[in-house]
Amino acid sequence: MTAYAQRGHEELQKIKDRLEEEHAAIKARGLALNMARGKPSKAQLDLSMPLLSAVTSLEECAAANGTDCRNYGVVDGLPEAKKLMAVLLDDEPDNVIVLGNASLNAMYDAMARCWMFGTLDSAPWCELDSVKWICPSPGYDRHFAVTEEFGIQMIPVPMTAEGPDMDEVERIVASDVSVKGIWCVPKYANPTGATYSDKTVRRLAAMECAAEDFRIFWDNAYGVHHLFDEEAEQDRLLDIAAACREAGTPDRPFKFASTSKITFPGAGISAMASSPANLAEAKRRMSAQTIGHDKLNQLRHVRFLRDAEGIAAHMSKHAAILRPKFELVDAKLQEGLAEVGGCSWSTPRGGYFVSFDAPDGCAKRIVALAKEAGVTLTRAGATYPYGLDPRDSNIRIAPSLPPIEELEEALDAFVVCVKLAYAEKLLG
Amino acid sequence: MTAYAQRGHEELQKIKDRLEEEHAAIKARGLALNMARGKPSKAQLDLSMPLLSAVTSLEECAAANGTDCRNYGVVDGLPEAKKLMAVLLDDEPDNVIVLGNASLNAMYDAMARCWMFGTLDSAPWCELDSVKWICPSPGYDRHFAVTEEFGIQMIPVPMTAEGPDMDEVERIVASDVSVKGIWCVPKYANPTGATYSDKTVRRLAAMECAAEDFRIFWDNAYGVHHLFDEEAEQDRLLDIAAACREAGTPDRPFKFASTSKITFPGAGISAMASSPANLAEAKRRMSAQTIGHDKLNQLRHVRFLRDAEGIAAHMSKHAAILRPKFELVDAKLQEGLAEVGGCSWSTPRGGYFVSFDAPDGCAKRIVALAKEAGVTLTRAGATYPYGLDPRDSNIRIAPSLPPIEELEEALDAFVVCVKLAYAEKLLG
Repeated sequence: MTAYAQRGHEELQKIKDRLEEEHAAIKARGLALNMARGKPSKAQLDLSMPLLSAVTSLEECAAANGTDCRNYGVVDGLPEAKKLMAVLLDDEPDNVIVLGNASLNAMYDAMARCWMFGTLDSAPWCELDSVKWICPSPGYDRHFAVTEEFGIQMIPVPMTAEGPDMDEVERIVASDVSVKGIWCVPKYANPTGATYSDKTVRRLAAMECAAEDFRIFWDNAYGVHHLFDEEAEQDRLLDIAAACREAGTPDRPFKFASTSKITFPGAGISAMASSPANLAEAKRRMSAQTIGHDKLNQLRHVRFLRDAEGIAAHMSKHAAILRPKFELVDAKLQEGLAEVGGCSWSTPRGGYFVSFDAPDGCAKRIVALAKEAGVTLTRAGATYPYGLDPRDSNIRIAPSLPPIEELEEALDAFVVCVKLAYAEKLLG
Repeated sequence: MTAYAQRGHEELQKIKDRLEEEHAAIKARGLALNMARGKPSKAQLDLSMPLLSAVTSLEECAAANGTDCRNYGVVDGLPEAKKLMAVLLDDEPDNVIVLGNASLNAMYDAMARCWMFGTLDSAPWCELDSVKWICPSPGYDRHFAVTEEFGIQMIPVPMTAEGPDMDEVERIVASDVSVKGIWCVPKYANPTGATYSDKTVRRLAAMECAAEDFRIFWDNAYGVHHLFDEEAEQDRLLDIAAACREAGTPDRPFKFASTSKITFPGAGISAMASSPANLAEAKRRMSAQTIGHDKLNQLRHVRFLRDAEGIAAHMSKHAAILRPKFELVDAKLQEGLAEVGGCSWSTPRGGYFVSFDAPDGCAKRIVALAKEAGVTLTRAGATYPYGLDPRDSNIRIAPSLPPIEELEEALDAFVVCVKLAYAEKLLG
C-alpha cells in the first residue's frame, strides 16, 4: 500500500469518499465508547475489594503503636502508612507525610502554600509580578489546570524519549528568576509513556536556577504501574531526591504519589516526600488546615497492600488486565495506519496512556469525527498548556476503562477517523 | 462557708497551706488525665463500628444512581450524601457540596480560595493591604489558627448568651471595609455552649457591611449534638442562609458541618452549604484541586446514618454517654467552688465543652497547677485570638474523652487547682 501523502488527488478523493461511508456506517451504530480518561476498568477495581473489609473490627482500628485510628490526630500519617507510601515514593518513611484521598489535591495544596506563604523564607509567589512554570508537553492536563488556576504563566518544553528537553529547561531556569518550577511525570509519563533517563534526572537536580525557591513537582503517579512482570521489561527511574541531595539542592523536589490507580481512585491515600526542611514547613502549615487525614483508610491500605512485595504482586494483576489493551491499541494502529503514513504513537511499558501523533493539523478534526462516531477521546490540545497544541497533532489515548471488545470497536472507529481527517487534510 | 474574697489574710493563708498539701498529694499520685480536647470517648466511637462494614460488597459500592463509587469522579458529592449532609447543614441538598474528611479543612480551603482569588469578582484578599476578621471570644482555637496563618488581623468580640455582642459586630463591619468575615459556631458554641438567638442570626444576616464580600463562616459543628432527647431541652437555631435570603444578602454565609463527632473524627465526611453563586464558584475552583472526594466513605455514612431520624437516634446514644459527664462537671464545680466564689461556668445543653471563668488573672496559673497534678487542660488563653485572654480567666473544659471515673479524679484535682490559684491571687 502507498502512503496517503504519495497518492494522487483523484485516488485520495476516492479513499475519502469510502472513508466517509465507513464513518457514516459507524455513526449509524450509535456507539457510546470512551477512551478519554485514565480510569481503571471494573475488572481492575474488583482486584481491590478485600481492601473494603480490611478494617472492620475494633482490633483492626488500632495502629501498630496502639493509636486508635477512629479518633482525631496524627497530622502526618501513621508510621506504617509512611512505610507503605515510601515504597511508591522511592524514599525513606521519615521523608514521607501521608495525605488525603488524592495526589492532585496534595499537589494543589503544595502549590497553594508556596503561592500564599512562599517556601523556606522566600516571598509568597502571589506577591510577585510574574510567576512562570515549565510544562513538559505533551503532559497531564490536570497539572496544567492547576498552574492555570493560579495565573502562572506556563512555558511548554518538548518531551523527548528521555524526559523534557533539558537543554531548553536549563536555558529557561538559568536566566529567568520568575520561573518557579516544573511539572514532571517522570515514569511512564502522561501521556507519552517515557521514563526520564538518569541523565535527565541528574540534570534536573544539578541545573542552575535563577529562582532560589525553584521546585520540581515530581508526580510519580505511575511508579509501580508496569505493563510487564519481567524486570528487564520494566522502566527504572533514578530518585530525584537522592540526585538533588548529591547535587546540593536537597529542597528542590516535592515528590507525590497515591494509590489512586492501585486500589480505588478517589478512595485511596496519597503522600508527599521531600527534604526535612520542606516537610517541617509543610507539616507546620498543614496543622492550620487539618487535624489529620483518614487514618482508617491508611490502615486499610497497609493491611491490604502490606509492603513492596504485596504492591508488586497486586500491580502484576493490574498489568495482566491492562497489557492486552495496550497490545490491542498498538496492533490496531499498526494494522490500520502504518501504511497510511503520517502518524506515530508510543508503545509504553507502563502507565495509562498511548500518545498518538496525527499528521499536523488533524488532531481536532479526528476528535470531532470520533465524537460524531460515538467515541469520546481526550480533547485535542488537552495535553498542552492552555489547550494549545501548536501542531494540532497530539491525541491522548486512554485504553484502560473499556472492556477489550469495546476498545476494539473504539479503535476501529478511531482509525477510520484518523484516515478520514488525514485524507481531508491532504485534499486541502 | 464564706467566699474566699471575704476571708481574712491569715485564714486565707491557712486555706492556701492546706490546698498546697492537697495539691502535693495529688501530684504524688502521678495521674495522667486529659480534659484538653473535644475528642469523643472510646464508648462513643464504639457506637459507629457498623459504619466500617457498611460498604464491603460490589453492590454496596454503587450509588443509588448506579455510579460505581470505586472510580474517579463526582466532584461535589453523591446525591444521597448531599441529602444526608443537608440534615446537618439545615439546608436543601441542592445547596450542599460534600467534601473531604474534615470541616476544618473545608473552612481553610474556603478561606484560601477567597485569599488567592477573591470571591464573586472581589479582589483577592492577598492583594489587600489589610484583612481583618471578627472573632467572637471565647471561641474555637483552631478557627483562630486559620485566620492567624493567613496573617488576618483578628478582632475579638465578646460572646454573650445569645451569640456575639451584635452592637459591637455591627459597629465594626459597618465602618471598616477591610473586615472580611466572622467566625461563628452558632449552636452549642465552642466553648461557651451558647446558641445564637433568632435575633442574633437576623442581625448577622441584615447588618450593613462595608466590605461587599463579607463572609460569615458558619461552623455548625454541633448542630445535632444535643445532650437531652426531649425537644424542650434542645436548643434551636435559626438558619442563617434563610435569614440572609430574606435580608437580601444570600451570598454572605458559608455553612459547614461534618460527621467528625457523629461517627469517626478524621474518618468522617464534611460538607458546605451556600448560595447558588457561591457554590458554583467553589465547584469551579475545586475542580482544579480535586477530581472528587472519597465517595465510598460518603456511601458508608449514608448507609449507616440513613436520614434525619437515623442521625437523631444515633446522637441520642452519644448523649446518653456524654450527659452524665457534663452533669458530673457541673456537680463537682458546684460542690467544690460555689461557695468559694469568684468562678462561673456554663451548663450547656449540647456540644462538647464547659466554659469555665476563673477569677481574673488565675487561668494560666490553674492550667499550670493542673499540669503539675497530672491533668492536661486546654492551654489558658487558647479560646482567644492570638492566645490572649485579656482577663486571664477563661478555661475550656472538655469532659468527653476520659471515662467517668477518670473525669471525676480530674475534676477533683481541677477544683483544688482553682482554689489554690485563687487563694494565691488573693494573698497577692
